[in-house]
Amino acid sequence: MCAEGAHINVDESTAPEKFLGCKLVAIPAADGKLTAPQVKEKIQRIGDQHHPQAKVISISQASEYGTVYTIDELRALSAVAREHNMYFHMDGSRIANASVTLGKSFREFTRDAGVDVLSFGGTKNGLMFGEAIVFFRTELAANFMYTRKQGMQLASKMRFISAQFEALLTNDLWKRNATHTNKLARLLGDELTRIGLKVTQKVEANGVFAIFPAEIIEPLQKEYPFYVWVEKTNEVRLMCSWDSTEGEVKKFVNKVSELLG
Amino acid sequence: MCAEGAHINVDESTAPEKFLGCKLVAIPAADGKLTAPQVKEKIQRIGDQHHPQAKVISISQASEYGTVYTIDELRALSAVAREHNMYFHMDGSRIANASVTLGKSFREFTRDAGVDVLSFGGTKNGLMFGEAIVFFRTELAANFMYTRKQGMQLASKMRFISAQFEALLTNDLWKRNATHTNKLARLLGDELTRIGLKVTQKVEANGVFAIFPAEIIEPLQKEYPFYVWVEKTNEVRLMCSWDSTEGEVKKFVNKVSELLG
Amino acid sequence: MCAEGAHINVDESTAPEKFLGCKLVAIPAADGKLTAPQVKEKIQRIGDQHHPQAKVISISQASEYGTVYTIDELRALSAVAREHNMYFHMDGSRIANASVTLGKSFREFTRDAGVDVLSFGGTKNGLMFGEAIVFFRTELAANFMYTRKQGMQLASKMRFISAQFEALLTNDLWKRNATHTNKLARLLGDELTRIGLKVTQKVEANGVFAIFPAEIIEPLQKEYPFYVWVEKTNEVRLMCSWDSTEGEVKKFVNKVSELLG
Amino acid sequence: MCAEGAHINVDESTAPEKFLGCKLVAIPAADGKLTAPQVKEKIQRIGDQHHPQAKVISISQASEYGTVYTIDELRALSAVAREHNMYFHMDGSRIANASVTLGKSFREFTRDAGVDVLSFGGTKNGLMFGEAIVFFRTELAANFMYTRKQGMQLASKMRFISAQFEALLTNDLWKRNATHTNKLARLLGDELTRIGLKVTQKVEANGVFAIFPAEIIEPLQKEYPFYVWVEKTNEVRLMCSWDSTEGEVKKFVNKVSELLG
Repeated sequence: MCAEGAHINVDESTAPEKFLGCKLVAIPAADGKLTAPQVKEKIQRIGDQHHPQAKVISISQASEYGTVYTIDELRALSAVAREHNMYFHMDGSRIANASVTLGKSFREFTRDAGVDVLSFGGTKNGLMFGEAIVFFRTELAANFMYTRKQGMQLASKMRFISAQFEALLTNDLWKRNATHTNKLARLLGDELTRIGLKVTQKVEANGVFAIFPAEIIEPLQKEYPFYVWVEKTNEVRLMCSWDSTEGEVKKFVNKVSELLG
Repeated sequence: MCAEGAHINVDESTAPEKFLGCKLVAIPAADGKLTAPQVKEKIQRIGDQHHPQAKVISISQASEYGTVYTIDELRALSAVAREHNMYFHMDGSRIANASVTLGKSFREFTRDAGVDVLSFGGTKNGLMFGEAIVFFRTELAANFMYTRKQGMQLASKMRFISAQFEALLTNDLWKRNATHTNKLARLLGDELTRIGLKVTQKVEANGVFAIFPAEIIEPLQKEYPFYVWVEKTNEVRLMCSWDSTEGEVKKFVNKVSELLG
Repeated sequence: MCAEGAHINVDESTAPEKFLGCKLVAIPAADGKLTAPQVKEKIQRIGDQHHPQAKVISISQASEYGTVYTIDELRALSAVAREHNMYFHMDGSRIANASVTLGKSFREFTRDAGVDVLSFGGTKNGLMFGEAIVFFRTELAANFMYTRKQGMQLASKMRFISAQFEALLTNDLWKRNATHTNKLARLLGDELTRIGLKVTQKVEANGVFAIFPAEIIEPLQKEYPFYVWVEKTNEVRLMCSWDSTEGEVKKFVNKVSELLG
Repeated sequence: MCAEGAHINVDESTAPEKFLGCKLVAIPAADGKLTAPQVKEKIQRIGDQHHPQAKVISISQASEYGTVYTIDELRALSAVAREHNMYFHMDGSRIANASVTLGKSFREFTRDAGVDVLSFGGTKNGLMFGEAIVFFRTELAANFMYTRKQGMQLASKMRFISAQFEALLTNDLWKRNATHTNKLARLLGDELTRIGLKVTQKVEANGVFAIFPAEIIEPLQKEYPFYVWVEKTNEVRLMCSWDSTEGEVKKFVNKVSELLG
């Protein structure tokens, strides 16, 4: 079970279905976050061999909409998982951004909040390649070494991935990068609001979602690559990178302002 | 793409995902039938390698709600399939019932309506085992012999399946059976309405859907095996079989009537 | 791990690889039977994530060459399985024939010989459809109900399969059938030897393997359907069925004799 | 079909079976190279739905035994592929070494020799990550973009892979690296022969295979990481890297010499 807009649901082709033989139950989530009652309602026909059986709750922290689950929200979800014999997975592609926003250590909102398995991402925060899978219940990792290889995820030169993680996790580099991008994203959100545009989601990570008038989108995309997230409403997604600068944000907002006329 | 309540979505475990490596996009359909505009709206991000690509429209005729697609509805769906380079699959578990209801030959509402592949069912209409897969575009069947075997669907004694189909398709046995069950289902629907119960779907095949007061469900199930289709509303599904009789239907309705007090 | 000529290796398309994601390690076995030392030698690089890990020994009893494992041979194999944390699977398509040949109950050469999972076949011994999977270690069956459905092996009318097994297992019908076919096979083997042909395998079940002169194969196949098992040597496979008769065997041998001139 | 010692057969866990649902037919090859007659003999039961159908010949150039296919050998294999409607795949993890040994351009021994699909490797020749899949018949690549994503091989920052390939393919860097390692491997082979050890394979790429006395293996491995390739015969595999030096090779040989006493 995942949010309808979850990366595993809409941006991984059908890799999850192909590799796991599973069904993704996609639950509408306006702000990108699943709620415990939503999940509970979808747990159906347990013990009925005809019906897909609920086994995993998967969330993204921060979510694909740049919002961040609070520790209470995470605990509510993990409680549902426990109660129904499900696993609780966190896609932490932007986990550093979430940590900075929450003001909490990784441990506090993963292991301590009941997460079973975490994908700890790095490429959104400065890495060239790689992701670390963290099992908080050792027994779940028993055969992971083989699963990783069978899933074609054992790089032939793993040391070049480890080296990047070592750098990222040393002297709080991860934190400096994430603090920087979070700050830029807030600046971008504030500026867009200031010039009269509607920001559609809370800015809690490195992304800003906003409604842009249709006529400015194409001219803007010539200079700035970004996605239109929802075609019907012209909701766009703007992302700040660890190597973006305050100057770039301001220049972008000026350009938007200019196009708005 | 299929209706949310489609058999392949809710009653085949995760066999489709496992065997095909596909995602089922489940579309809410109150009467069990997909519409062309619904399908069209879900065809998204074509050519984007990150996103699952729309390839198949799969419907059930008659639907899981006992309703039957008209030829116009089928043509509208097949037009969407053609336009978007998709395949059009029909699950014909109750195809005989649909044929009788439509008053049309199989050909008229399958091949001639643009269906590409049909599963022609028999076990709901008198067979012990078996199903025939019919390809209306020969090129799609090129490797099917191997796909069937790889999918563990080549029975070791196929002749005993063929023999049943021969009987079913001889002297309109299929039609007599389906005419009989359709008639019984209409009788059942009418009788339930007569005694004051709400029948929730058009009765166009061998099934009747109705709201039963919660307190009569369990006592009834002791004598008559049937499913509660929607727990929240106490909508139940009642099916007539080729070997059910008018007497049995009346006896059942009397029992319901008696329990209603 | 299985014999090179095992049904799962050569006659199931690539269903095992597709459904299980496994590698079949095919071990040459002149008489169709694996030996414990052969299996042992192939258990390699355990704990090395790059290499497929040995997990299952799968044999057929009787084998595809019509030979039968003795209880000692089975125990030797199950000891290897235990020692190396592998599962021991028996394909019992012709288990009734093996039981009659060994003069032992099913239990004595399955559960008591260390078999973990058995496919108990029926279609070679009088059934139209169906096979029963028997788990001798309950914990292995924990999720089998779902695996069966996901593997598309839950027939919609299971009662018609159960009914056949009930008949087969009542009043020793299985034994009468198997005793009859075993006897016919021995008769066929003896007769072929008598008229000067080379029978290549011990006749311990319902099959006879023999070398036929190339020139008689095609004329014979016009009247009697049978397979050439090894093209290079003209080794053919002749099978007796539960409904074959002594008269048919004799008539066949006469025909062979006549063709030999 | 591949050589028994092929990387895809022995060092990719069961990823090929899991992802492709295929059977790898492993053919013994003493020098690591498949021959056309060997392949031909294994093409069996074509058109028989029960039997896995031969579809791909996969070779490694250079082979896992450090030997290199000649252009004539490649043409003989591709002719078999053409004749039997099979694909011809080349695993080019060490393609640069093969090119230097053959004194031929990549094109001459891939496309021009009838190869259909090539995995062009880089990590054995200086790259940190990445591999390029090259289709010589465009139609085979029609859906590859989706297959790559479904197979979890689309890195999120592809530009960092492309950048490495650009460097490798500029100013013949690939050739300098491979020339260097080939030269070192020949030196290593010659030196081991000189001090009385048996080199078991022709040295045509960056690897040397030799029989080492059992008692020197463990002490050597303390300083030099290498694999024992065949346990029974103490055949070891020694690999030269693009950043190995002549001095290191000589130091290694001195150490071996010293241990031999």
